[in-house]
Amino acid sequence: MRILLINPNTSTFVTEKVAAEARRVAAPGTEIVPVTGRLGAAIVSGRSEDALAATEAMCLAAEYGGDCDAVILAISFDSGLRPLREMLSIPVVGMSEAAMLAACTLGGKFAMVTFGNRAAPIYAELCHGYGLSGRLSNVVSLAPLTDAEMRDPLLILPRLVEAIDRTVCEDRTEAAILAGAIFAGITDDVAERVNIPMLNGVAEAVGIAEMLARVRPRKAKCGSYQLPAAKKIEWPNSALVSRFKTF
Amino acid sequence: MRILLINPNTSTFVTEKVAAEARRVAAPGTEIVPVTGRLGAAIVSGRSEDALAATEAMCLAAEYGGDCDAVILAISFDSGLRPLREMLSIPVVGMSEAAMLAACTLGGKFAMVTFGNRAAPIYAELCHGYGLSGRLSNVVSLAPLTDAEMRDPLLILPRLVEAIDRTVCEDRTEAAILAGAIFAGITDDVAERVNIPMLNGVAEAVGIAEMLARVRPRKAKCGSYQLPAAKKIEWPNSALVSRFKTF
Amino acid sequence: MRILLINPNTSTFVTEKVAAEARRVAAPGTEIVPVTGRLGAAIVSGRSEDALAATEAMCLAAEYGGDCDAVILAISFDSGLRPLREMLSIPVVGMSEAAMLAACTLGGKFAMVTFGNRAAPIYAELCHGYGLSGRLSNVVSLAPLTDAEMRDPLLILPRLVEAIDRTVCEDRTEAAILAGAIFAGITDDVAERVNIPMLNGVAEAVGIAEMLARVRPRKAKCGSYQLPAAKKIEWPNSALVSRFKTF
Amino acid sequence: MRILLINPNTSTFVTEKVAAEARRVAAPGTEIVPVTGRLGAAIVSGRSEDALAATEAMCLAAEYGGDCDAVILAISFDSGLRPLREMLSIPVVGMSEAAMLAACTLGGKFAMVTFGNRAAPIYAELCHGYGLSGRLSNVVSLAPLTDAEMRDPLLILPRLVEAIDRTVCEDRTEAAILAGAIFAGITDDVAERVNIPMLNGVAEAVGIAEMLARVRPRKAKCGSYQLPAAKKIEWPNSALVSRFKTF
Amino acid sequence: MRILLINPNTSTFVTEKVAAEARRVAAPGTEIVPVTGRLGAAIVSGRSEDALAATEAMCLAAEYGGDCDAVILAISFDSGLRPLREMLSIPVVGMSEAAMLAACTLGGKFAMVTFGNRAAPIYAELCHGYGLSGRLSNVVSLAPLTDAEMRDPLLILPRLVEAIDRTVCEDRTEAAILAGAIFAGITDDVAERVNIPMLNGVAEAVGIAEMLARVRPRKAKCGSYQLPAAKKIEWPNSALVSRFKTF
Amino acid sequence: MRILLINPNTSTFVTEKVAAEARRVAAPGTEIVPVTGRLGAAIVSGRSEDALAATEAMCLAAEYGGDCDAVILAISFDSGLRPLREMLSIPVVGMSEAAMLAACTLGGKFAMVTFGNRAAPIYAELCHGYGLSGRLSNVVSLAPLTDAEMRDPLLILPRLVEAIDRTVCEDRTEAAILAGAIFAGITDDVAERVNIPMLNGVAEAVGIAEMLARVRPRKAKCGSYQLPAAKKIEWPNSALVSRFKTF
Repeated sequence: MRILLINPNTSTFVTEKVAAEARRVAAPGTEIVPVTGRLGAAIVSGRSEDALAATEAMCLAAEYGGDCDAVILAISFDSGLRPLREMLSIPVVGMSEAAMLAACTLGGKFAMVTFGNRAAPIYAELCHGYGLSGRLSNVVSLAPLTDAEMRDPLLILPRLVEAIDRTVCEDRTEAAILAGAIFAGITDDVAERVNIPMLNGVAEAVGIAEMLARVRPRKAKCGSYQLPAAKKIEWPNSALVSRFKTF
Repeated sequence: MRILLINPNTSTFVTEKVAAEARRVAAPGTEIVPVTGRLGAAIVSGRSEDALAATEAMCLAAEYGGDCDAVILAISFDSGLRPLREMLSIPVVGMSEAAMLAACTLGGKFAMVTFGNRAAPIYAELCHGYGLSGRLSNVVSLAPLTDAEMRDPLLILPRLVEAIDRTVCEDRTEAAILAGAIFAGITDDVAERVNIPMLNGVAEAVGIAEMLARVRPRKAKCGSYQLPAAKKIEWPNSALVSRFKTF
Repeated sequence: MRILLINPNTSTFVTEKVAAEARRVAAPGTEIVPVTGRLGAAIVSGRSEDALAATEAMCLAAEYGGDCDAVILAISFDSGLRPLREMLSIPVVGMSEAAMLAACTLGGKFAMVTFGNRAAPIYAELCHGYGLSGRLSNVVSLAPLTDAEMRDPLLILPRLVEAIDRTVCEDRTEAAILAGAIFAGITDDVAERVNIPMLNGVAEAVGIAEMLARVRPRKAKCGSYQLPAAKKIEWPNSALVSRFKTF
Repeated sequence: MRILLINPNTSTFVTEKVAAEARRVAAPGTEIVPVTGRLGAAIVSGRSEDALAATEAMCLAAEYGGDCDAVILAISFDSGLRPLREMLSIPVVGMSEAAMLAACTLGGKFAMVTFGNRAAPIYAELCHGYGLSGRLSNVVSLAPLTDAEMRDPLLILPRLVEAIDRTVCEDRTEAAILAGAIFAGITDDVAERVNIPMLNGVAEAVGIAEMLARVRPRKAKCGSYQLPAAKKIEWPNSALVSRFKTF
Repeated sequence: MRILLINPNTSTFVTEKVAAEARRVAAPGTEIVPVTGRLGAAIVSGRSEDALAATEAMCLAAEYGGDCDAVILAISFDSGLRPLREMLSIPVVGMSEAAMLAACTLGGKFAMVTFGNRAAPIYAELCHGYGLSGRLSNVVSLAPLTDAEMRDPLLILPRLVEAIDRTVCEDRTEAAILAGAIFAGITDDVAERVNIPMLNGVAEAVGIAEMLARVRPRKAKCGSYQLPAAKKIEWPNSALVSRFKTF
Repeated sequence: MRILLINPNTSTFVTEKVAAEARRVAAPGTEIVPVTGRLGAAIVSGRSEDALAATEAMCLAAEYGGDCDAVILAISFDSGLRPLREMLSIPVVGMSEAAMLAACTLGGKFAMVTFGNRAAPIYAELCHGYGLSGRLSNVVSLAPLTDAEMRDPLLILPRLVEAIDRTVCEDRTEAAILAGAIFAGITDDVAERVNIPMLNGVAEAVGIAEMLARVRPRKAKCGSYQLPAAKKIEWPNSALVSRFKTF
């Protein structure tokens, strides 16, 4: 089984992190195929960069998705999730989506943990968009990260632990998600120090993508997730234009 | 007052329709500045085309928004609404958003009327994303439109009337929205034949944009709608790249 | 265009405030016609006074609404909003309703700011009744106001700023409403000192009333907002009795 | 125990119906004290008449509530419920509120059955206002009733049965409420002919009022249901004015 | 009228408490018939013990419910409420359910007060399951109780008062429920010291059970609360096995 | 990896079906260990049988769960899901829960398909309990099944197809779940004949259990899913009693 792991951020250090984490938990026989964005922001941090990332993810999927069995969006805003799900015939899973779905099987309410003051409302809306607000206890924000902390988030381990302890106490949180591709690989370090299960999304996305690829539910032939009608679009990416021509 | 009217569809006949409707209801002294998408689909009809339209709307806003007092998105998926609201310091209003907010002042529950089997779930999600599901009675779908019907939707007037009569009867609908930029200008023709108020969104968006431009609420300086941090992005549109550089 | 501005409080100083604010933002050519309650409480502060204000607003509308193009309820409980919307053929907008609808176009979640311990649950219910609970971050209460502070709320400017800063921080609030007709005219003073857009409702109600008066959606001919059937009612107000006789 | 049964409709035949039904199910030792509205509409049928009924209910409570242990609002819009609950120190129960609370103990989702096309949205909003939308399966509307049918609703028994059978089948309805004071006393006739439990509200309101009068929860001393502050109000009803003076 | 009061905890001191409280508020002529669990946990404190209590409540109902007019579940997780409601033809009321329904008639939002860190999410889910989340302000947790405090919760009166004062202040709480059968009988002691009405559920359950027994709504003949089909089940309780054989 | 597949129905033909389906989709190296209920009903069909199945599932887990890596509940009411999740340190997945979570990744809204008139409200509540009501389009009920149809549900293939086609058309359904362990193995037969993806839950539960077993989120050490305190319980199952003694 081949899983295309799309990181629409243009930072390869993030791709490397998420690919390593994906490979760590993949079932035997699963090949992880990571690709990185070329257009857009180095690290997507808000609404407009998220929109750019969505179209870049579409281009990457058009270029590299051909011989894969499933796609994972390794960006914590799940940029482009619904468009990809429409335009591809293979399963598509967002890392935050996967984290939230997995969290539903582990506790009553889950928290999301992020940093800075821009992202928290976006994660709350993401969760609302998935129909899961009723399971969300809170979105907790740490202070903005430095570049060094982005690259090595274990530097903020004490702050993460403190934030999680607080939401456990105040919000009836029973599971928590480290929201952000940069947090890939550190959930266990945090989990050892807190009282609730921790998730990040990359690992869970691998498992859910494998599940869907194995179960093989049929592609919708009607509704909002059927393939688009074949048509001529204008776009500075020939793979995407071809894809639309031949739907 | 200058209002930039962005149609991110690449069809100029749609731009002409929405501009005419906008001018019909604009207050004295309001100038409507219409622009049309260059990249993407002629008529946006689904999730992936919507994502392309969002970034095209961002480019158009970066190029033409400079001396305007407000922006209207004249596309019924409100493509790019949140990104534009983040990256601009002037008010931004989506046509379907405006229709829904206006509908809230006219009746208990409102219906949306669309065509084909692809768009209905997307409109329902749009409404859910605005936190207005509790006011939505139903999304009603007519059969797909021919090209001629797209250009002259009065051809399907009897079908529209019948659909609205039915949702009034079955869903406690007290106001209805003709969802789609192509329906601009025909609400009165429908309203004469049904028992509830009809909206389309373009006219309401003009009024709400004028209101916001007059009230002048301050741009957020924190949270998810503050301006993005200045940064280098890669994008094949120099106006957009410049915009991000100078935030 | 003539807009009837109903203040069903019996305090003329409140009417003067809201009329001044309404005139400040009205479009050229809009005439504001303010009227003040004669029956009920000087300043409506709770559920039973709100009920009295609703019927007083109905009487004022029956007496003065004849040659107007729209009605604004300049009382922050929007007392009598739905009854007026049923009994009149022109648009009716509540000031808090207008503030909430406008807030939806400015940020993710909005807070309402009030004072005393009686009003907060009522505002939360008002918001819930409009189907907008999903957009409400919190209702924040300051200590009760003195008479002098009621007349000049700039006296409590530091307390307002502090309350708003706190809800921005704790509740992911991205816009805030100063709930209360007495706050008309001070939103800019507050907005200068906080990081999010501020609203009060009077200004927004003017813009939405103008929009509706210009768009002219048809009066419902069925459902809960059609005109009442003509009938004899008993009520110590001849204008209201006449109105019901001739519906 | 004395229970004040307020019918703010000005029709005594309705008062007689609800008083008979209340007496039929009251516990031994419970005295039912019925009073009828003097101002307002003969049969309240919409939003503006409901607002008038609310203030009339307040006047009736101020005049007759003095030596009672609880109040029942015998009008199916529960007109004035929250204002009465604020201004009185004894429990207040609305008949539709009681029906809905009782329905919660009998099945999963309940339907409300009404007539005409005006009332259904109002009942849906009433239920929403009580926070019970999640338990409501549908509001079903029969054709408008004639005067004779209002006075003797058994005339429409077959239509009621058919409507209930349909909502059982289509909406997963497991209990139904005959919404309307005029339906008092006929639930058993309907229940014999359908497959789910039937409620009307008057009988349930008696039981809940008795329960509250026996349990005697303390009157709130803060929040939106504490007694209003003593103040001078203007109102053409001396009992109400006195009440406000002496709070 | 005979009301079966089922305490599926295996602790007789709890049964004694709840029986005393039930008798205190029962109407003249109501006989309270208390029974205690034999299988399961002494004091049910979590999800798996709750599941055991549910089947034990079913056995107790099969053995003792024969000549009763209603059943009360005197355990604050309302263990077995829906199964009992299906298998019995008489009304069944859970104590926490009753407390929540009564709270709906007393204030806007109600809090639940519990102890330890295990129960709070379960109470929140219970409330959600009843469709009442919109009325819940918070579930407040005190530190775990000692055995002595379990038997005499007045020992923690100051902690209860402090917790309630805080939720009144922070969560707009207007009524509070002492969740737990062990709190039966102390609501008045708390209520004297706080500003909002207090409930526990046992007293309210008696009143609601009496109401339902008097109103006598018909047993459902379809849907999820009709009697089970007669069938052979395996269970180490002959009364339950017989019951299923003869449905 | 060993997955305990608990069928708390006492019918071995159901266990055989679900075990076959589980093995069909399991990853290489996954061993499926099926067990069947001894106590309770042959085919659980309602609320009281569901409660019995929950405790039987607890006993089976206590007896057989020792050396397994995850547990699947192969009963479509997910009987005992939360209790098992509390008392075990390994992941537990319900088949309907798994189907719903997977459906969230495939379309906007999903329908559940069942038979008879008893189960539909229970599935709707199950979905509500998982916080997923916002994703549920409808619960569709076919006529009751005969014994033969239970054993070979392909006999009702045309009825299934018709029901799914109808909910696609009327309810904006974009994915559907055949709710019931007896439907294990026939989703592809249905999917070939309809326009949307089909799920049953057993296959998805295997994949989600494998994912959780591979990711190994930590067991909660606080909250409602921590292990119960060690205590003496009374229960006619020594494995369960031992388990509680040694928590």
